[in-house]
Amino acid sequence: MATNKSLSKRTPTSNLMLFSGRAHPTLAKEVAELLEVDLVPTTAYDFANGEIYVRFEESVRGCDAFVIQSHAAPINEAIMEQLIMIDALKRASAKRITVVLPFYGYARQDKKHLGREPISARLMADLFLAAGADRLMTVDLHTAQIQGFFDGPVDHLLAMPILTRQVRKRYGKKPLAVVSPDAGRIKVAEQWARQFDNAPLAFIHKTRDVTQANVTKANRVVGDVAGRTCILVDDLIDTGGTICQAAEALMAGGAAEVVIAATHAVFSGEAVDRLKNSVATEVIVTNTLPLAEEHQFDKLTVLSIAPLLAQAVSAVFEDGSVTSLFTE
Amino acid sequence: MATNKSLSKRTPTSNLMLFSGRAHPTLAKEVAELLEVDLVPTTAYDFANGEIYVRFEESVRGCDAFVIQSHAAPINEAIMEQLIMIDALKRASAKRITVVLPFYGYARQDKKHLGREPISARLMADLFLAAGADRLMTVDLHTAQIQGFFDGPVDHLLAMPILTRQVRKRYGKKPLAVVSPDAGRIKVAEQWARQFDNAPLAFIHKTRDVTQANVTKANRVVGDVAGRTCILVDDLIDTGGTICQAAEALMAGGAAEVVIAATHAVFSGEAVDRLKNSVATEVIVTNTLPLAEEHQFDKLTVLSIAPLLAQAVSAVFEDGSVTSLFTE
Amino acid sequence: MATNKSLSKRTPTSNLMLFSGRAHPTLAKEVAELLEVDLVPTTAYDFANGEIYVRFEESVRGCDAFVIQSHAAPINEAIMEQLIMIDALKRASAKRITVVLPFYGYARQDKKHLGREPISARLMADLFLAAGADRLMTVDLHTAQIQGFFDGPVDHLLAMPILTRQVRKRYGKKPLAVVSPDAGRIKVAEQWARQFDNAPLAFIHKTRDVTQANVTKANRVVGDVAGRTCILVDDLIDTGGTICQAAEALMAGGAAEVVIAATHAVFSGEAVDRLKNSVATEVIVTNTLPLAEEHQFDKLTVLSIAPLLAQAVSAVFEDGSVTSLFTE
Amino acid sequence: MATNKSLSKRTPTSNLMLFSGRAHPTLAKEVAELLEVDLVPTTAYDFANGEIYVRFEESVRGCDAFVIQSHAAPINEAIMEQLIMIDALKRASAKRITVVLPFYGYARQDKKHLGREPISARLMADLFLAAGADRLMTVDLHTAQIQGFFDGPVDHLLAMPILTRQVRKRYGKKPLAVVSPDAGRIKVAEQWARQFDNAPLAFIHKTRDVTQANVTKANRVVGDVAGRTCILVDDLIDTGGTICQAAEALMAGGAAEVVIAATHAVFSGEAVDRLKNSVATEVIVTNTLPLAEEHQFDKLTVLSIAPLLAQAVSAVFEDGSVTSLFTE
Amino acid sequence: MATNKSLSKRTPTSNLMLFSGRAHPTLAKEVAELLEVDLVPTTAYDFANGEIYVRFEESVRGCDAFVIQSHAAPINEAIMEQLIMIDALKRASAKRITVVLPFYGYARQDKKHLGREPISARLMADLFLAAGADRLMTVDLHTAQIQGFFDGPVDHLLAMPILTRQVRKRYGKKPLAVVSPDAGRIKVAEQWARQFDNAPLAFIHKTRDVTQANVTKANRVVGDVAGRTCILVDDLIDTGGTICQAAEALMAGGAAEVVIAATHAVFSGEAVDRLKNSVATEVIVTNTLPLAEEHQFDKLTVLSIAPLLAQAVSAVFEDGSVTSLFTE
Amino acid sequence: MATNKSLSKRTPTSNLMLFSGRAHPTLAKEVAELLEVDLVPTTAYDFANGEIYVRFEESVRGCDAFVIQSHAAPINEAIMEQLIMIDALKRASAKRITVVLPFYGYARQDKKHLGREPISARLMADLFLAAGADRLMTVDLHTAQIQGFFDGPVDHLLAMPILTRQVRKRYGKKPLAVVSPDAGRIKVAEQWARQFDNAPLAFIHKTRDVTQANVTKANRVVGDVAGRTCILVDDLIDTGGTICQAAEALMAGGAAEVVIAATHAVFSGEAVDRLKNSVATEVIVTNTLPLAEEHQFDKLTVLSIAPLLAQAVSAVFEDGSVTSLFTE
Repeated sequence: MATNKSLSKRTPTSNLMLFSGRAHPTLAKEVAELLEVDLVPTTAYDFANGEIYVRFEESVRGCDAFVIQSHAAPINEAIMEQLIMIDALKRASAKRITVVLPFYGYARQDKKHLGREPISARLMADLFLAAGADRLMTVDLHTAQIQGFFDGPVDHLLAMPILTRQVRKRYGKKPLAVVSPDAGRIKVAEQWARQFDNAPLAFIHKTRDVTQANVTKANRVVGDVAGRTCILVDDLIDTGGTICQAAEALMAGGAAEVVIAATHAVFSGEAVDRLKNSVATEVIVTNTLPLAEEHQFDKLTVLSIAPLLAQAVSAVFEDGSVTSLFTE
Repeated sequence: MATNKSLSKRTPTSNLMLFSGRAHPTLAKEVAELLEVDLVPTTAYDFANGEIYVRFEESVRGCDAFVIQSHAAPINEAIMEQLIMIDALKRASAKRITVVLPFYGYARQDKKHLGREPISARLMADLFLAAGADRLMTVDLHTAQIQGFFDGPVDHLLAMPILTRQVRKRYGKKPLAVVSPDAGRIKVAEQWARQFDNAPLAFIHKTRDVTQANVTKANRVVGDVAGRTCILVDDLIDTGGTICQAAEALMAGGAAEVVIAATHAVFSGEAVDRLKNSVATEVIVTNTLPLAEEHQFDKLTVLSIAPLLAQAVSAVFEDGSVTSLFTE
Repeated sequence: MATNKSLSKRTPTSNLMLFSGRAHPTLAKEVAELLEVDLVPTTAYDFANGEIYVRFEESVRGCDAFVIQSHAAPINEAIMEQLIMIDALKRASAKRITVVLPFYGYARQDKKHLGREPISARLMADLFLAAGADRLMTVDLHTAQIQGFFDGPVDHLLAMPILTRQVRKRYGKKPLAVVSPDAGRIKVAEQWARQFDNAPLAFIHKTRDVTQANVTKANRVVGDVAGRTCILVDDLIDTGGTICQAAEALMAGGAAEVVIAATHAVFSGEAVDRLKNSVATEVIVTNTLPLAEEHQFDKLTVLSIAPLLAQAVSAVFEDGSVTSLFTE
Repeated sequence: MATNKSLSKRTPTSNLMLFSGRAHPTLAKEVAELLEVDLVPTTAYDFANGEIYVRFEESVRGCDAFVIQSHAAPINEAIMEQLIMIDALKRASAKRITVVLPFYGYARQDKKHLGREPISARLMADLFLAAGADRLMTVDLHTAQIQGFFDGPVDHLLAMPILTRQVRKRYGKKPLAVVSPDAGRIKVAEQWARQFDNAPLAFIHKTRDVTQANVTKANRVVGDVAGRTCILVDDLIDTGGTICQAAEALMAGGAAEVVIAATHAVFSGEAVDRLKNSVATEVIVTNTLPLAEEHQFDKLTVLSIAPLLAQAVSAVFEDGSVTSLFTE
Repeated sequence: MATNKSLSKRTPTSNLMLFSGRAHPTLAKEVAELLEVDLVPTTAYDFANGEIYVRFEESVRGCDAFVIQSHAAPINEAIMEQLIMIDALKRASAKRITVVLPFYGYARQDKKHLGREPISARLMADLFLAAGADRLMTVDLHTAQIQGFFDGPVDHLLAMPILTRQVRKRYGKKPLAVVSPDAGRIKVAEQWARQFDNAPLAFIHKTRDVTQANVTKANRVVGDVAGRTCILVDDLIDTGGTICQAAEALMAGGAAEVVIAATHAVFSGEAVDRLKNSVATEVIVTNTLPLAEEHQFDKLTVLSIAPLLAQAVSAVFEDGSVTSLFTE
Repeated sequence: MATNKSLSKRTPTSNLMLFSGRAHPTLAKEVAELLEVDLVPTTAYDFANGEIYVRFEESVRGCDAFVIQSHAAPINEAIMEQLIMIDALKRASAKRITVVLPFYGYARQDKKHLGREPISARLMADLFLAAGADRLMTVDLHTAQIQGFFDGPVDHLLAMPILTRQVRKRYGKKPLAVVSPDAGRIKVAEQWARQFDNAPLAFIHKTRDVTQANVTKANRVVGDVAGRTCILVDDLIDTGGTICQAAEALMAGGAAEVVIAATHAVFSGEAVDRLKNSVATEVIVTNTLPLAEEHQFDKLTVLSIAPLLAQAVSAVFEDGSVTSLFTE
């Protein structure tokens, strides 16, 4: 204990501390290295009945905490672990808690498609708030409106510059078209098209057989793709079904080749096999989610999101502007 | 005061009370008539400096209150009046307060397009909650995600059945295409297409002149519209600029005729003149917003939203299902 | 829609609706049968990446909802599913939401044992509140103080009467001792002793080898157990390690026989084998958690908690007193 | 437990339950008698160290609770007991909790007179809300703005009709003047004057000796009181110092006689002696606060507030209008 | 991005940023100049339908934000713009948001005068809190109790020293009386009187014709004003009706001259004409509200409130005491 | 006011300010001396009717406030005073408010023992939060779960090292046993035993006469105490009844001597006489509560808790770790 009169006044310092859950430690380590800090040593394990235990090995009192967890499978474990980490930080007097979500779970349940459904994406925002989160940082939300689900600042980072840089390098000199696999996501494709000199825009119109419920009748290509290298863009690839069918429709529609680009490589179920065997030339994703060795394949290109996250964490810590990270 | 022993127990009754702000009394009256109730007599006026005064003329204690206000111009007046009405109801012991928003103001500011912007659509939800709203009822939100901005139940009613019924009656036998004026709203157009036997889908791709900032270079029609009656669908028509240009692009692209259909007739600035003089055959809207006499014109068809609202109010009051109001 | 003047007034009815997550449907069905109601038909499944989808098949507007979910393994799935169900009920206008937790997950993390730990039992209460829970109902909390973690009514039901009835029937005529396996839980053992004519009380004192960290040196029996049938009581059996060692210490200490009684059969890891092979004569538990066929064994007696839950749900629904469920 | 199918639906009944703290049981009993209900039997006592214990002897589940406590001395005990009663009601599932405050403690600290003061009247509203109060009912607040301190409905009852009835009966035929003892409370006096045919209004202007801090120099009567029966009105009489000096100033100013009327008889310290020996003819108060036998004196008239409270409780319970209780 | 190890620790700096809405930019600029800072460049305009758009042109991350907006006409626009600015600041990670309200709108609706009225002054405090305000700063509230409406610190600045300095300079040697135009505001007049050597105090007693509702019968002067220069003080002048009638009553009552002093020059409707043509010698106000050129007139003196605001902003920013700004 | 451009940026300093209520000023002064700061001069008194008035004599804007108040008798006064101090600090812009509770009142009401009881320990946490507390610091809670009652950080300090140091010094060489006076508190005794080389553990089993309600039949000693110096440990001594009976039972059971050790010397009612005349050799307590001169007696040893509090305040102020204060 200090015993001199000067104790009563001090100049506070701000201390960046980076925490990682167990869902995607590789990415967290990469961010830590770029920031030249160490991840805070953390004890985390599951009890026999699956309850998660977390404890930090160093004092976190007064720190500026960044808690990285990708919502990878098993996704509910990942979310619960992050909530528990936030609770522990709050009770241990962290000064500010920024929740870093390279992939935001349940983002697709962002509205009620039918009556008596939840809005799980809002629920997640509420749970983080209830646990003690002060702010969120995330990458390429399924819909940008999810920012408004959290009652506080949300830094919404865009991976598009990372992905377009790769596309430009490889395919920049060919005649391009930008294609959305779905009517609901053309807005994003339009942003891409703007990056490629107003390349033509197209989308896949899935029509249903009106005589049979829930049966897709056809995937019509709407827009001009003949002879072009089609960049098929989406925010995420889950089972890969939709996007691989879209790629086929494009080739059937006369496309020269198809390149798939997406931020989040969820890669559930048959995804890897489908993509490996698809008509696409290349599949470009980022590492917002962990990719097991056995999920890697020849035509898959994985770009690192870590520099973007490190830049944003640094800017938030130093009260710098993050806006510059939104555009190239 | 009751003076017998039985006072201590009673069977509560639920009492529907319908309130209207001053923004669109005609619609409120129409809803009241359909519900066979009277609007609650309300004193409302502006003080000399513009402050709004509201007082209800009848006891509202314990009632199930529905407060209708369309966010028409002057829009901030309309919103503030509704907030003040809610505060007065809360303090006068209304049992439940449902805010009825035929048109939800600021819905278009539903995300940050740039850094340091507000998310005003979320702010509105927060303001209604702060004032004392228990639940919202609204029609055709700009994006369905706005439902998730309110921390409570939101009944999101759809005007599409009302509009498609009209389109089917007039144009149902012609070859149709459904067109979105904008890449961001094709999802809605896709829902329309499904109502019309999987009619072809198209959209307008606005490209920017990359050598000049903020200058639209061209409106490309993406999709097959030649020889078809194009139903150009949107949630709202504000100044009419975008939609009239889209109509022209469609005619230039070989469309047989263009019909404009939108839920909310905001009709600001030059909207009426533009629509009147546009290439469109007909403009179909609903009366979620008040339309001055002088804003009516020959090819404008205004359908009433009142039956939809009355049905929903009745269902909410009687704890019935509103889900049936979501589909035809 | 009603179209007569009487619409504006009605006598509300209260409608009990019972919902079950996927963790322990057998128990929920048993409760439903006792209440002579049907479980509300619910669609629930996992998406390919593990996200949970829930939707109720019937209108829940205005209902008095009881959402049963035991926090069984995989426990974080079970909790998240229940949170999502609550969110869906809140947004679908359920009138009151009672969360029924036959086993409350994370109850053992009810305080900070060390600095920088979470208080996960409080976090769970906060998450349920954030999702929209109005009240909780639960059975035999690890510590009764957890009632105070929730900001609202908690009905804390006690399984002791169910368990003691069984013990009395089988062992009531023998000389008994009531034993706590742990110094921290003697309070519960004391309540049991009171039910058995002030039977002697004992506990196991685990001492640590002070020369080696975290190594238990010995299990001392404190109290008089010689020649007695020892009822070894606990709130839950997880891996069974502690309780089986306690049973051995009792036999070594001269006990005539050992009977194990616990409310929650978590039965993780080696639990079943340990119990099967233990020195105990009988293991008595309830079905607050699901027990797979292969987890059943000869000396295991499983008593149903369903009548207790059904009684409590009924009392809550009818505004009756639950206090009578606290004592025999 | 009910065992027939009809269990799942019921018509809820509302049950008025009246609770009283230990501060002023006589008033609570009088209200109960007027309502023809019994006070809910309650165990309440102080532990040896002064901690208060409260428990209700009957089930309160689902009731419409009214908790009466006058903030009499020892005032902090009275407030804390009421807070604890509210907590117990909330946790025991009362449906609605109305806090009845015949005298609202700390009402005089309704603003910061100096920097670094609390606003204790707001704090009390916050404490009641935190404990679980749904609504407040109170009589003659020190300033009407305190209604706005509570985030919910406040029924602000006025004792003026009770007091003026008495004044009219006794002094109605004499020439009257209405006098405020203080510049800050003339608004109330003005309301009184309106009840007496626009009787002249006066007030006492206390001036300070500018050469000595905090020393009152003189009590100037402002207004015309000569030859009149002066009704000196205030919301409360605490130590009686101010009001007795005001009475003297009025007599010195030529008043024919002085009658003191106030709602709340706080009567601290020397109050009783001062009033007994004052120049006033009569002192008229209500029984919002308990008056010990020895605090009664000849020229004191105590009117009962119970009928007003009973009427208001009854109206709130039956969802009737309370507005009629605001004016004669 | 910083790339050295020292990144993880830093000494935070606090950054004052001053923002102005569009209601009264002149005052904001004056404050900025006194503080020797620039107003933060801000884009703000109305969309065609009246919705307000705001965006800040510089990073505000981590700043100590002061958002000045006078609630001038159109008052609801002004309030909504300020709410939207606060939302944008909150979402852009401002560290602390102080809302500066030189004139607090709706302050006069600070209580329920009748049943079923709102308490709009409390509602405003709630709206600011909901939007994200941390603290308020305001000048001469209509009633000081409004401080208690906000759940957080309120710096309530007093313009009296500015006004009294002017009065003393011009009229200090004459025999003065301080007069309140209304019974409810004598407390303020009393504070003034104390500044002027305990000058006599008077007020205007408005009596109503009891045979006709809402008709003022007479304005009686209560107190001694004969031969004196009457300083007629109020917090605001709205339409000027009351105060001009009061001035006339004073002259009729024998006053030597009347000087009107008020903090807020709302000046609605006929105010300017009434004041210009009134019997008052001088009208002294501050510039808390904008005064159009055409609203200025010969006997109007406008004193600047900017130095007071600048001092207070500076003290708040530097954690100095504001208390010294409360008294001369 | 600063008038140079540099005003807009500053390095904030953190300022420790220590406040004391009137319940236990000696302890607060001792802490202040150890921290080498002065207690903030505070005006605090009771109004005639018992309402508490508090005002700080120095600016507290931006300070790191620590508000010490022991919940000594009259306990509700002490709690209310602390709540009012917190409100004043919040409204005066203290930056962070840490509530220091050497003894946490109502901690024993930490659960519902019976239906319709409050959970007053949770209520206290809610009241502190509502008043504006950011964090709590307290010593030896009755149950550690109370930490989870507060929604924020709680520093739970342990007095055990202070007490065991004394015991070791005096009795360390004798054969010891650690005894809990009650089945519910053996966990704490177990922690003590671990400090004394795994000394034997015992407890007193109170049995009730089943033929007579609420009559204790006997105090059985469970465990081996013959010939040993028994350290009878508890968190608090209230009336002393239980602990003195336990001491007698131990002597009757063959103990060599009994030493009583407890953190909180509540000492209500007959406590001092009972302890003075008890069979115990020594009674060791700390000064978390004030002890009147006349409450001191020969065999009472009072150890100061001030160094522990001072260390913790200092660590919290300097963002150091408090964990080290949890273990010796």
